Amino acid sequence: MMIGKAGPATTSISTADAASITVRGRDLCGDLMGRVSFTDYFHLLVTGREPNAEQRFFLDLLLVAIAEHGLVPTNQAARMTLAADPGSLQGAVAAGILGCGTVVLGTAELCGRFLTEARARTDAEGDGALVAMAAAIRRSGGKVPGFGHPLHKPVDPRAQRIFALAGERGVAGPYCALALATAPAVAEAWGKPLTLNVSMAIAAVLLDLGFPPTLIKAIPILARTASLLAHLAEEQARPIGFLLAAHAEAAIAYEAEAD
Amino acid sequence: MMIGKAGPATTSISTADAASITVRGRDLCGDLMGRVSFTDYFHLLVTGREPNAEQRFFLDLLLVAIAEHGLVPTNQAARMTLAADPGSLQGAVAAGILGCGTVVLGTAELCGRFLTEARARTDAEGDGALVAMAAAIRRSGGKVPGFGHPLHKPVDPRAQRIFALAGERGVAGPYCALALATAPAVAEAWGKPLTLNVSMAIAAVLLDLGFPPTLIKAIPILARTASLLAHLAEEQARPIGFLLAAHAEAAIAYEAEAD
Amino acid sequence: MMIGKAGPATTSISTADAASITVRGRDLCGDLMGRVSFTDYFHLLVTGREPNAEQRFFLDLLLVAIAEHGLVPTNQAARMTLAADPGSLQGAVAAGILGCGTVVLGTAELCGRFLTEARARTDAEGDGALVAMAAAIRRSGGKVPGFGHPLHKPVDPRAQRIFALAGERGVAGPYCALALATAPAVAEAWGKPLTLNVSMAIAAVLLDLGFPPTLIKAIPILARTASLLAHLAEEQARPIGFLLAAHAEAAIAYEAEAD
Amino acid sequence: MMIGKAGPATTSISTADAASITVRGRDLCGDLMGRVSFTDYFHLLVTGREPNAEQRFFLDLLLVAIAEHGLVPTNQAARMTLAADPGSLQGAVAAGILGCGTVVLGTAELCGRFLTEARARTDAEGDGALVAMAAAIRRSGGKVPGFGHPLHKPVDPRAQRIFALAGERGVAGPYCALALATAPAVAEAWGKPLTLNVSMAIAAVLLDLGFPPTLIKAIPILARTASLLAHLAEEQARPIGFLLAAHAEAAIAYEAEAD
Repeated sequence: MMIGKAGPATTSISTADAASITVRGRDLCGDLMGRVSFTDYFHLLVTGREPNAEQRFFLDLLLVAIAEHGLVPTNQAARMTLAADPGSLQGAVAAGILGCGTVVLGTAELCGRFLTEARARTDAEGDGALVAMAAAIRRSGGKVPGFGHPLHKPVDPRAQRIFALAGERGVAGPYCALALATAPAVAEAWGKPLTLNVSMAIAAVLLDLGFPPTLIKAIPILARTASLLAHLAEEQARPIGFLLAAHAEAAIAYEAEAD
Repeated sequence: MMIGKAGPATTSISTADAASITVRGRDLCGDLMGRVSFTDYFHLLVTGREPNAEQRFFLDLLLVAIAEHGLVPTNQAARMTLAADPGSLQGAVAAGILGCGTVVLGTAELCGRFLTEARARTDAEGDGALVAMAAAIRRSGGKVPGFGHPLHKPVDPRAQRIFALAGERGVAGPYCALALATAPAVAEAWGKPLTLNVSMAIAAVLLDLGFPPTLIKAIPILARTASLLAHLAEEQARPIGFLLAAHAEAAIAYEAEAD
Repeated sequence: MMIGKAGPATTSISTADAASITVRGRDLCGDLMGRVSFTDYFHLLVTGREPNAEQRFFLDLLLVAIAEHGLVPTNQAARMTLAADPGSLQGAVAAGILGCGTVVLGTAELCGRFLTEARARTDAEGDGALVAMAAAIRRSGGKVPGFGHPLHKPVDPRAQRIFALAGERGVAGPYCALALATAPAVAEAWGKPLTLNVSMAIAAVLLDLGFPPTLIKAIPILARTASLLAHLAEEQARPIGFLLAAHAEAAIAYEAEAD
Repeated sequence: MMIGKAGPATTSISTADAASITVRGRDLCGDLMGRVSFTDYFHLLVTGREPNAEQRFFLDLLLVAIAEHGLVPTNQAARMTLAADPGSLQGAVAAGILGCGTVVLGTAELCGRFLTEARARTDAEGDGALVAMAAAIRRSGGKVPGFGHPLHKPVDPRAQRIFALAGERGVAGPYCALALATAPAVAEAWGKPLTLNVSMAIAAVLLDLGFPPTLIKAIPILARTASLLAHLAEEQARPIGFLLAAHAEAAIAYEAEAD
């Protein structure tokens, strides 16, 4: 059975025959291998185009910025999974990637949507729209994506560095400006400043560089895969997965509920 | 409860405080961001050291070589998963990574083990050991990892290119030599030549570059994540996931078994 | 670091000491094992209470209804994953479960939300609210969850059977009535009847039985796990995973895009 | 491309047309729904046959025995994943299932292989074979699957209960006898008794009931899915996922390694 309506039965990513592999119209072995970096290739694979110098620089920068942050929940979940199933590195990586959701790692995507809406609203209503948007989110009990951090206060040093480099290299455009202008609007709505974090910086720079908003989440997912592989290599050599679980379990009490 | 014996309660990958993040002893924001590429950072994360020029070159080369090969089963599984659950890009990536097993994508790890054993055996017994190893695997009904390919015959152009570059740049060492010398041993045991494929080339070069054998599988996993993200971006824009499933389903007949 | 605000550090599901395991206040070995069925135990685990006779009957019924539907995309994704990584049954099950999303298998959850809203709206506005809701969804380009099926037309025999049994056994209440009353509202909005499918029947009966709406999705997930295990057992014995992928791949053409 | 050799393009699990669904040769809606329990249906799906009374009793018993054991690593990994990605219940379940490996939850499969080999060896060599097998495993630095438990000492109450019911109901056969006879062999090899745990009891009873060895692992996977859904329902209502991660992280120190 066919679920939904069928569209064109085509792919534009790659094809292969016995002697060659063609990726995005280029010969993999004769042209790409040995010439392009993995970052270039990632850009080519997902967008169909090789990056220009600034796209390459900032793609590397953002992947490096978001990849690793110690024993965050996703890395812990992956290490516990490898401890339980040491035969499947891919299973442990998958467990870690599954935590790339709206709360911790995948927030950049929400930031991208916020900035897209913010741009439309400020274009139509002027800069006051940011204050109105933040206040409306606050009233509805929500959070402005990209604001607040459990550790980095009052600033997230990664966000600071990203905005600085975007400014220096002339790629900061309307989305970086909107991201920075959202900070006082959030502070007004919450009655105190909240940290402008790395996820907002990632989204703003990607949009200013012309990335499609739907690709934003690909950055933290690819970046975190590298970090997961590092944690899992360490777990294989010097395991702490079960130790993490033992300490966590010890902190929680069983409390029966009445039937 | 503590499962197994507890080892040292430490990690050497990273730590953070309110104002900074330290990765492998380096300041993430002040030193790494904007200076190192994502490939460099991946090497630093997993090995604790920044790559030298040849390590960087070949790490990029191998990641580019293995990332993408069209509508392979892992990319199909991921596209079907996204079609079924469009809200979770990370879930679809995870589904794709889970296929990085011994049969198709994760074979490089088995190649690494084969080469490690082959080196020990040929050191002890001379070059005839390769013929003996291949013949023993054949007799037991097994396969020599890294030989054979469903499409690329008689050569896998990626393997050819990798060995060529390893030779040109002077990094080909004993493991590349063993990989190439295994080909005639396999041909003798099977009575016909089998394609020396990309997984064996990846394993051989990584070992010649001094990578720990346990890290070999990290390469196809990271590489394939980039490819999965490209297929999933295309799936979001021009879906074929359900169409793939409809064609596949149509090819299989239901045949009741007697109770 | 603590992400978000910490709530009570307790769990009410189970605890254990050297000699016993206590689940939901009952002794696992002395009381539950050998007395309760797996379906009873599932109900106890997730709700904290053992089911009454009707809850047990319908929990079994709904799990049986939704578990299996042939080579659907989730079962295909799982079979391809096992073919690629035969060493990890759990990895292939996980790949299959990941497709339990909003489009195909997890729709029951959306049906539950629709019915909850429909109840509030019809209570406030009368029965005309259903027509208004369906028309509004149609205008916004959406779908009413639980309506339409790629194969079962004009009726989904599973939905029919569930509603029949719910009626016979006296458990059909306001939510079953709302589900059935939504069918003509949908037909009006779409200008043709759409199949009232199994996901809507599952949600309606669960809500009429007093299940928390947040538990609805647990039913298809547990049910599909049983089906996945059957497909994977068959895959181990008589593999078709790569054959599915070959037929699917053959149906898609590569079409280069202009740069 | 077709990976490997194609076998028959058939499935024997189910088929469907517009008006009906046929599972294992039975009409799902007319025959199975409302008549069979989920446990019966699981047996039918995976084996092609409905269970007899003892198969049903013990399938329920074993699923209940292994489903839940508190904040074990797999449940923690799932709770952390849901905390990070609250929108995907299926993703969190998948993360938990991925830990069903050789060390903690999936051990029953290894027990099944051990018992199968033990039966062949004791048939050929007499009962002394068990001592020889245990001693050989000890010498090679391995573990006898199904022996030892981090909490339950000197006995695992679940194993005790399973063996007692298997004896009472007359289903204990050669595999239960072998499992029990392995305990003194292990005690001799290790110089101290080790707990005969629930995984060995599950494997022994399943083999005595005539289950295929390859199906053993399906039991803990299905059982744990029920437990994961309970923990995730509790996590949605009263979250502890990030609290678990905070306590675990606090127990681990960063220790830089020399370059």
